[in-house]
Amino acid sequence: MAVRETANSRPARHSRDDVAQAALRILDDFGLPDLTMRRLAASLDVQPSALYWHFPNKQTLLAEISDRIVSHNRAALRDDAEWSDRVRAEAAGLRDSLLAFRDGAEVVSSTFALGLGATAPLDRLTSAIESGGFDPETARRAAVALVHFVLGHVSHEQQRMQYDSLGVVADHASVAATGAEVGAAPGSGESPAEDFQFGVSLFVGGLERLAVAH
Amino acid sequence: MAVRETANSRPARHSRDDVAQAALRILDDFGLPDLTMRRLAASLDVQPSALYWHFPNKQTLLAEISDRIVSHNRAALRDDAEWSDRVRAEAAGLRDSLLAFRDGAEVVSSTFALGLGATAPLDRLTSAIESGGFDPETARRAAVALVHFVLGHVSHEQQRMQYDSLGVVADHASVAATGAEVGAAPGSGESPAEDFQFGVSLFVGGLERLAVAH
Repeated sequence: MAVRETANSRPARHSRDDVAQAALRILDDFGLPDLTMRRLAASLDVQPSALYWHFPNKQTLLAEISDRIVSHNRAALRDDAEWSDRVRAEAAGLRDSLLAFRDGAEVVSSTFALGLGATAPLDRLTSAIESGGFDPETARRAAVALVHFVLGHVSHEQQRMQYDSLGVVADHASVAATGAEVGAAPGSGESPAEDFQFGVSLFVGGLERLAVAH
Repeated sequence: MAVRETANSRPARHSRDDVAQAALRILDDFGLPDLTMRRLAASLDVQPSALYWHFPNKQTLLAEISDRIVSHNRAALRDDAEWSDRVRAEAAGLRDSLLAFRDGAEVVSSTFALGLGATAPLDRLTSAIESGGFDPETARRAAVALVHFVLGHVSHEQQRMQYDSLGVVADHASVAATGAEVGAAPGSGESPAEDFQFGVSLFVGGLERLAVAH
């Protein structure tokens, strides 16, 4: 057993990138609850101890895959585009990148809460808002608020997908049939993408109003 | 064993209310991951089968405790108050009620995603927005967006509290020391309550701008 562990634990066998990619595959195939260090090690045919050479703990692994998830956001408009269009594009791109991986919103929000990474979306949103003439502090606060909205929205979408796949969601058609019960399933009858855009447009409108007030 | 189970499973021994209250206590003391039907049954000194007489599955139990969590929102202003003040009060009250129970945001957001309940905040926000002269559909969509923001924000706050208590959060002072790293910990240096109010004010401003545009 000890001999086998020594042979398998040699860190050079898998790069940090190999480990992160294997983690993303497990996340996307099975979801966050199944992404354990033990399972990850098994998928790479090494002992768990070999992983700690690359990632000292699970939090730093989650931070790495959060960074990879949000780096899929390719929606940025040029710096000279209208600021409000840039904000909309950044928010939509962040949503798309979170949706691209199962439980993406949950992984990224836990990394945000830990203060460990996945800062690119926040920096890009801040920069887009600043280009509208807002001071850096206001731009940052507004970007943080918008990220909370995006994570809340996409987390809801991904939970619904998960429940749908398990067949446990209350029937949408039936709850939408009577006015009194529409509230049972938050949504407006529009697509999630349209509801999302509407929410972002309220944020942008609030910023525009702030600009006018000054 | 069978004899004991029969004796303990008699549903009349605990009311539905007893079961829900015991579940809220476990949630608040130990967090959502520890709220299992097995543990709940043990805390009431009954077999798990006795719980299913009141709640056919864990989802309906979570829906019941979600309803209880959000019913703590006592912040409502009178119907004749300014609509924007009502929206702010409802949002702040919802935040307070979620913060009153450990993992409150996570419990309520999972119930929302299931479409099973906790609709009171959505209905009250919709009504507050409608009182500003918005059509019911717009009011509903805006309320849904605002609920996503509230859940995203409070979920972040509660994750941070959890991590803080475990001592695993990246040091705030050190990440705030350099501009480039501020993004590592979303926040603005203001209190969570102030950041929250700022986010809500952007929503309200967006609605005001929408009203002006019409």
